[in-house]
Amino acid sequence: MPELRQDPILGHWVIISEQRGRRPGSATIERQATTEAECAFCPGNERETLPEISALRAPGTAPDSPGWRVRVVPNKFPALSPASDGGEVEQDAQQDLFPSRPGHGHHEVIIEGEAHTRSVTEFANDRMEELVCVYRDRFRALEQMPGTRSATLIKNVGAAAGMSISHSHSQLIATPMLSPVLEAELAAAQNWARAHDGSCIWCDIIRTERQRGVRVVEVRENLVALCPWASRFPFETWILPVAHEAHFGRTCDATTGEFATLLLDVLRAIESRLTNPPYNYAIHSAPFPVEPTGQYHWRLAILPRVTRVAGYEQASGVYINHVTPEDAADQLRRSMSLSDGSSQQPDPSWDGRREASTTATDAE
Amino acid sequence: MPELRQDPILGHWVIISEQRGRRPGSATIERQATTEAECAFCPGNERETLPEISALRAPGTAPDSPGWRVRVVPNKFPALSPASDGGEVEQDAQQDLFPSRPGHGHHEVIIEGEAHTRSVTEFANDRMEELVCVYRDRFRALEQMPGTRSATLIKNVGAAAGMSISHSHSQLIATPMLSPVLEAELAAAQNWARAHDGSCIWCDIIRTERQRGVRVVEVRENLVALCPWASRFPFETWILPVAHEAHFGRTCDATTGEFATLLLDVLRAIESRLTNPPYNYAIHSAPFPVEPTGQYHWRLAILPRVTRVAGYEQASGVYINHVTPEDAADQLRRSMSLSDGSSQQPDPSWDGRREASTTATDAE
Repeated sequence: MPELRQDPILGHWVIISEQRGRRPGSATIERQATTEAECAFCPGNERETLPEISALRAPGTAPDSPGWRVRVVPNKFPALSPASDGGEVEQDAQQDLFPSRPGHGHHEVIIEGEAHTRSVTEFANDRMEELVCVYRDRFRALEQMPGTRSATLIKNVGAAAGMSISHSHSQLIATPMLSPVLEAELAAAQNWARAHDGSCIWCDIIRTERQRGVRVVEVRENLVALCPWASRFPFETWILPVAHEAHFGRTCDATTGEFATLLLDVLRAIESRLTNPPYNYAIHSAPFPVEPTGQYHWRLAILPRVTRVAGYEQASGVYINHVTPEDAADQLRRSMSLSDGSSQQPDPSWDGRREASTTATDAE
Repeated sequence: MPELRQDPILGHWVIISEQRGRRPGSATIERQATTEAECAFCPGNERETLPEISALRAPGTAPDSPGWRVRVVPNKFPALSPASDGGEVEQDAQQDLFPSRPGHGHHEVIIEGEAHTRSVTEFANDRMEELVCVYRDRFRALEQMPGTRSATLIKNVGAAAGMSISHSHSQLIATPMLSPVLEAELAAAQNWARAHDGSCIWCDIIRTERQRGVRVVEVRENLVALCPWASRFPFETWILPVAHEAHFGRTCDATTGEFATLLLDVLRAIESRLTNPPYNYAIHSAPFPVEPTGQYHWRLAILPRVTRVAGYEQASGVYINHVTPEDAADQLRRSMSLSDGSSQQPDPSWDGRREASTTATDAE
């Protein structure tokens, strides 16, 4: 049974999960990329995962056999376990100095295609749309699980971004408490709303960023992609719904379809500019239970990992970023306007220094 | 001129420093270890650094020439620049959504020995003591710099921990504002003191941990080493003064000497158990100006980096750690009791799972 411990001073939570130490390659920092023959996520090897929770599969094919296009399975080395798994955690009597709770929750893996591909950018738009609908379905399923307070979808691409299996997949982790990041966001959103007639801080950021223009990568009918003001990583990019929507799981079909193609386009632009960097993406969504009026605004955040989270970042919470978000947005806009799905080469002349912005909306 | 930007929602600060992008190897994630011939930190190459701020050197040797044992220089690619360097940062008019300030501060490099060694664990005790005195002197010097609110000393060992030059060195970064980590610590300490008759939370943690015993690595006359309750990384270890001391720069000579040998012993135990892992260490000290009654307690934190900070940690502030701090402390205690400075081998039988604790003080 994993245990959840909180730091009494800094507030971060730690999942103490000895079981995670037993997964392949976990003891070493440089994990080997798996090959197709030994890949537990490739078709034909379905028995190497736990039984599937759900799948998109060809009519007539049986669960846990080939014929699927997207497959959702419980993580074999879960960070958190369902409450029904039983088990007890011995709590320290002094909970103010040593806070803890049982590590109840859910840890799912979404295997994103039958092919042994590194990145979803190899997918066609319709496959990506199908996949994003699975993401949405899993958020909807997890919000029904008793005791679940929130869920985060994350993807790790490349060993430097924490990837342990190279077959394209994402993970959904649902926790029995709000994460420190979600708590801080909700507190900030509430403070902002109180001071601004109930306004949503993310709605206000989106409106103001669209006026400024310089950090906006792309605006579509329902969504906007931008490089955030205080980007922690070079080319950090967020995708947000333009309308005030708190829950990713409640997004309409039109927005979901547009989200799939915009996400592909932005990821392709980042992969083009940074030459297939390691990256993470995460979907941040409001806590459960679903309250339609909640002060939250869902988003997907892409974190390219071309720089390290080194000692200073860990010790201070101050990040060092050598590419301004204005430069990054400019580069991504150019990359996306060059591209219409066809192949493109990184610009070898670009060296990360500020270049003149070429957008008409450059108001700064 | 670097710029400091704050995230309006999450509160983290980002140093936007395009100059940092120009340092060798900064564009790629896997940096090459430098060799002695080309190492800017080796004796004979003093002209490749900026002119030295201070040094411990043999009598009669000139600044910026060989003959030194420890050398302090300004970082050639500074994250922050002294205010006297001039330069302006254009601020966004809407500071509530786009907070920023000029990137004024100090960024020093402490070159820790004339030999091209990877880790300070190769040093004899007296050399380490000399080095720790230089750390202390630099904290004292930085607290005198106008506009400086706090300083953090950090070390990155190994590429995976953010090291860019393999010659053993540390960095001191002084900022014009409190870091988010320091702000959170001070707020938590104040809350604790209010609820506990003015008591220091770190003093209370040290006292309680000594009663519990299981997470204590070593107790000496003036210092304690322990694996913290909510360790984010396997074998995370803190060294703290037993007495209530807020400022590392104000530590007495006796404690400083003991600190040097305890730090060496703990680092050697970690390197032995984890077979020379990448690691960071950081010295957390109270903000400036020096107030002797401040609610803070300095510490050094060692973060072995055998696991990645992947997508989930970044998105949630929840860490996954597969080694309990109780196990880690037990392993380190054994390693330190085996060792009296002589060489030791990692225990190949240990696989990170819980083992019976052998301490008499195991009260849990």
